[in-house]
Amino acid sequence: MLQYQALNEYRALIYARKRRDLFVEQSQLVCREIGDGNLNLVFHIADQITGKSIIMKQALTYARVVGESWPLTLDRARIESQALLIQHSICPGFVPKVYHYDPIMALTIMEDLSSYLVMRKGLASRVQYPHFSRHIGRFLARTLFLTSDFALPSQEKKMRAAQFMNPEMCKISENLIFTDPYFDSETNRFNLLITDAVIKIRDNDQLKLEVAKLKEGFLTHAQALIHGDFHTGSIMVTEEDTKVIDPEFSFYGPIGFDIGVLVANVLLSFASHEGHTPDSQERTNYQAYLLSMIEEIWSCFEKEFRDLWEKESKEQMTVIPGYVDDYLLQVLEDTAGYAGCEMMRRIIGLAHVPDLESVEDPNLRAKGEQLALSIGQQLVLERWQVQGINDITSRVRQIAGLGMNQ
Amino acid sequence: MLQYQALNEYRALIYARKRRDLFVEQSQLVCREIGDGNLNLVFHIADQITGKSIIMKQALTYARVVGESWPLTLDRARIESQALLIQHSICPGFVPKVYHYDPIMALTIMEDLSSYLVMRKGLASRVQYPHFSRHIGRFLARTLFLTSDFALPSQEKKMRAAQFMNPEMCKISENLIFTDPYFDSETNRFNLLITDAVIKIRDNDQLKLEVAKLKEGFLTHAQALIHGDFHTGSIMVTEEDTKVIDPEFSFYGPIGFDIGVLVANVLLSFASHEGHTPDSQERTNYQAYLLSMIEEIWSCFEKEFRDLWEKESKEQMTVIPGYVDDYLLQVLEDTAGYAGCEMMRRIIGLAHVPDLESVEDPNLRAKGEQLALSIGQQLVLERWQVQGINDITSRVRQIAGLGMNQ
Repeated sequence: MLQYQALNEYRALIYARKRRDLFVEQSQLVCREIGDGNLNLVFHIADQITGKSIIMKQALTYARVVGESWPLTLDRARIESQALLIQHSICPGFVPKVYHYDPIMALTIMEDLSSYLVMRKGLASRVQYPHFSRHIGRFLARTLFLTSDFALPSQEKKMRAAQFMNPEMCKISENLIFTDPYFDSETNRFNLLITDAVIKIRDNDQLKLEVAKLKEGFLTHAQALIHGDFHTGSIMVTEEDTKVIDPEFSFYGPIGFDIGVLVANVLLSFASHEGHTPDSQERTNYQAYLLSMIEEIWSCFEKEFRDLWEKESKEQMTVIPGYVDDYLLQVLEDTAGYAGCEMMRRIIGLAHVPDLESVEDPNLRAKGEQLALSIGQQLVLERWQVQGINDITSRVRQIAGLGMNQ
Repeated sequence: MLQYQALNEYRALIYARKRRDLFVEQSQLVCREIGDGNLNLVFHIADQITGKSIIMKQALTYARVVGESWPLTLDRARIESQALLIQHSICPGFVPKVYHYDPIMALTIMEDLSSYLVMRKGLASRVQYPHFSRHIGRFLARTLFLTSDFALPSQEKKMRAAQFMNPEMCKISENLIFTDPYFDSETNRFNLLITDAVIKIRDNDQLKLEVAKLKEGFLTHAQALIHGDFHTGSIMVTEEDTKVIDPEFSFYGPIGFDIGVLVANVLLSFASHEGHTPDSQERTNYQAYLLSMIEEIWSCFEKEFRDLWEKESKEQMTVIPGYVDDYLLQVLEDTAGYAGCEMMRRIIGLAHVPDLESVEDPNLRAKGEQLALSIGQQLVLERWQVQGINDITSRVRQIAGLGMNQ
């Protein structure tokens, strides 16, 4: 095909049939559109004879969640496929394999992860994943360190930064995460029961100043090739395995943004169990598990990052005593700040999380939302006091009224 | 010409003759190569009949200062001509007019500034320039603010950041300013009489940690289209007029780098008068003038920057009370830090400044160099304490042993 056209299940199947590297002529293909995201078409295509299956993801020219009134660049399909290839080369097995990328159709064919569960759903069902924190800490450390100025020659890093400039997708984050929630913007929506809390946030100049500084970092601080949308819906899990998907927001940005968004989404699950898990023992047990998960994610990230710093640095300055400690502290401060921003925008901005949206009773939902807003604000305002990941989790315990020894 | 070739005076004259937009057929051209820089050929071409003259600047494929063993990208000619055009559109009259850019020959024809003096030479002769600080403060504020995320739509800023990625020229600064001076690198050279001071710097882990952090900012903090080499040899002056030249190191970097490099070079002149101006009254008078110049540069920059923030911001977050104060404080901290780095590297790295190099007596030169090193170190180490520009100048007075009321 010489020109972009949006696929439907029939056309997607025809497209797949032609790819002899994937399916043999005798294949009996079945195609289903399974996209539940905000932006793209996602087709699951399986050969009923061999059982072989693939995912075909196609970018639409507009944001699916809003409609054709919100045009969106097809270039995000290039960003996603190229980011997946880089992440695969850096951290094999942690992202879906890319089989084919078609720039005209803005389409990527990749490994089928149907046997995996979206992490967010697992957390909603209070599943515990014994390997998850270790996996994701390793993924974060490797993808972030190994695309940074510490590991790449500065010329190569700059070429990659230009390749992943991703202006349109960044613009979405700039508006929806860092700007709109703090003004009376039309894109915002929130539970009317928390209106008072929203007003207080919009009136809090000190909070907004800190958000403005975090936004400036997001706009200017090109530390590493970050995923850019690292929430629990971008992670697929089995009990044994972890895969990170959907890096269409990838760009060179602050390292703490990826870690912060992940921490925020674990804490949004934490807050949602105020509504989902009425049994208080069950709730506090799982909430304690979620906090220990955050601690373990950071400590695994930190350990791997220090190891890479020691062994894989190409930057002469990394030999300076104390530099890695100072750098990691700055990443942790950013992590707290960006986590706070992500938590607040998921409650009072455009794009909410299913964790809380699925709490049907608006009063119960408001309880979780208010908890999330409190945590979010404190993380933004107090990030300068954070010296270790436990300072974050114990602050959360305190705000949530959990015992300090949970 | 379809292929790059380095010009000589004869070829440059032939090239200029062909440009009917510049010289008429009857012109009687005279060409002189006048480049005294480290990297390029600079031809002055004048029509003896009309008196009309131009500058033709051509990039060489290697660094002139070192020789063919140090290859250099010709792309810097593109960077320079494009940066000049942007700076001209933002701050007309403060850069030479660009008449023609030839990408194949890596050549720019521009306004002749022969009637101007290189600022550095004026400072060596203890000239006072009544309008300079106001001009340069305005130039800094306008070129930096108006190319930042505060004034440009984020997509346009990102496109410009890609256009000015300038990896090879940045690499030179990364090595020569932030790395080599702190290690036993072959590129370094210094007055043997200050060897002890050099050893102390290389042994000072705290200092090197702060330099590493400033280097990280230089590598990652894409705040605005900075000049990238804003020393007093990149500024041409008359008593009335100020022009900024040579932006071949331009890229999206930290705002404080440009201001810091300028401050450093004024302070290097300050230190050089320890050797050049034996009369102590004359010396301290001029040194006091130089410090007041630094104060005025900053205050003019700040005033203009606040004015632009108020009137030209396209960023919604700039309405937040206190944001501009916080931002300017961070720029001032960076200014102090980068000024310190620039001062040190000009004494103990590869590229020295004529201000001090021209002090013939090595003992007298060492005195100025040691003063510059002391100031440089303190600026890097104490930049977090700086609250206003006077904190910098009074610290310099203190280190130089001048009265606090000078």
